[in-house]
Amino acid sequence: MSELPPLDVRLPADGVSVRRTVTEADVLAFAELSGDRNRVHTDAAYMAGTRFGGRLVHGAFLLALVSTASTRLIEETGGFAVAYGHDRVRYLAPTFLDDTVTVHYRPAQVDAASGKVTSEVEVHNQHGDLVTVGTHTVWFLPENPDERTSP
Amino acid sequence: MSELPPLDVRLPADGVSVRRTVTEADVLAFAELSGDRNRVHTDAAYMAGTRFGGRLVHGAFLLALVSTASTRLIEETGGFAVAYGHDRVRYLAPTFLDDTVTVHYRPAQVDAASGKVTSEVEVHNQHGDLVTVGTHTVWFLPENPDERTSP
Repeated sequence: MSELPPLDVRLPADGVSVRRTVTEADVLAFAELSGDRNRVHTDAAYMAGTRFGGRLVHGAFLLALVSTASTRLIEETGGFAVAYGHDRVRYLAPTFLDDTVTVHYRPAQVDAASGKVTSEVEVHNQHGDLVTVGTHTVWFLPENPDERTSP
Repeated sequence: MSELPPLDVRLPADGVSVRRTVTEADVLAFAELSGDRNRVHTDAAYMAGTRFGGRLVHGAFLLALVSTASTRLIEETGGFAVAYGHDRVRYLAPTFLDDTVTVHYRPAQVDAASGKVTSEVEVHNQHGDLVTVGTHTVWFLPENPDERTSP
C-alpha cells in the first residue's frame, strides 16, 4: 500500500459523508425490491414484543448508503471506478425505523499500482452511537482498456 | 467454532438459494432508494462507451439479495436472528442489467456458544460465471433477554 493516489485521481483526505433519515416507507420499499421481507423489518407488532422493541432497518440498506458515499467520493475525483469489495462489516447496534444515520467514508489505503482505494466506513445514528463499521474498496481503472495496460 | 447448532436451531446443511433477474427497473429503483445514482448504474450512453459496454447492477443490490437468502435460511430454522456482518466480499466480475443471478448461501461455521452462524456466499450469473463471493454472518439470539442469559 502506498500514500500515492492511484492513476491520476486526487482523493478528498477527510472523505465524504452521507446523512439519511431512514423512514418506514424506505424500509418497506427495500423489502419489496430485495425480496427480504424478514419479520425483523416488516412486522411491527411482533418486533414490539422482542428485545429490540421495534422494527430494524436492513443492514444491506446501510450498505446501500455506503455505496452512495463511495459514489460521492468517486465523483469528487472525476475518475472512473467500480465497487471491488467489503471487509469486516459489523452491525454493532440496531438501526430503527426513522433513525437518522450518517455514513462517514474516508480513504485509508491506496494501492497506486492497481488503482484500488480502501475506505474506512463508520455509521452513526442521531444519538451518536456507532451502529456499523467496515471497509469498502473501489477500483479506479481506465474507462477503456486501451488507455493503458489493463489492470 | 463448533459443528453443533447454536441455541436450538437446525440449519439446512446445503444452504439456500435465491435466483433473480435484475431488471433495469430494479436498478433504477435501487438508485433512487439508496441515492446512489452513479453513472455506472444509470447512464446507458456513457457506459456503452466504456470497457464494460453497458450499465452495471449495484454491488449493494447483490448484497441485498444475500440478505434475502439469509432470511430464507433463518425462516427454515424457525429461530430469531439478525444480521451481524460481512467479510471478504469481492465483486469478481460485472453484473449487467437483465442478468439472472443465483445466490448460494451455505452455513459454514457455527459458534454454538454465541449463536453466530457464518455462511459462504457465491453469486453466479446465467453464464455460470462467479460474479461475487464473500461471507455473511447472522446472530441467532433469544427474542427476549430474559429467555436466557443475554449473549
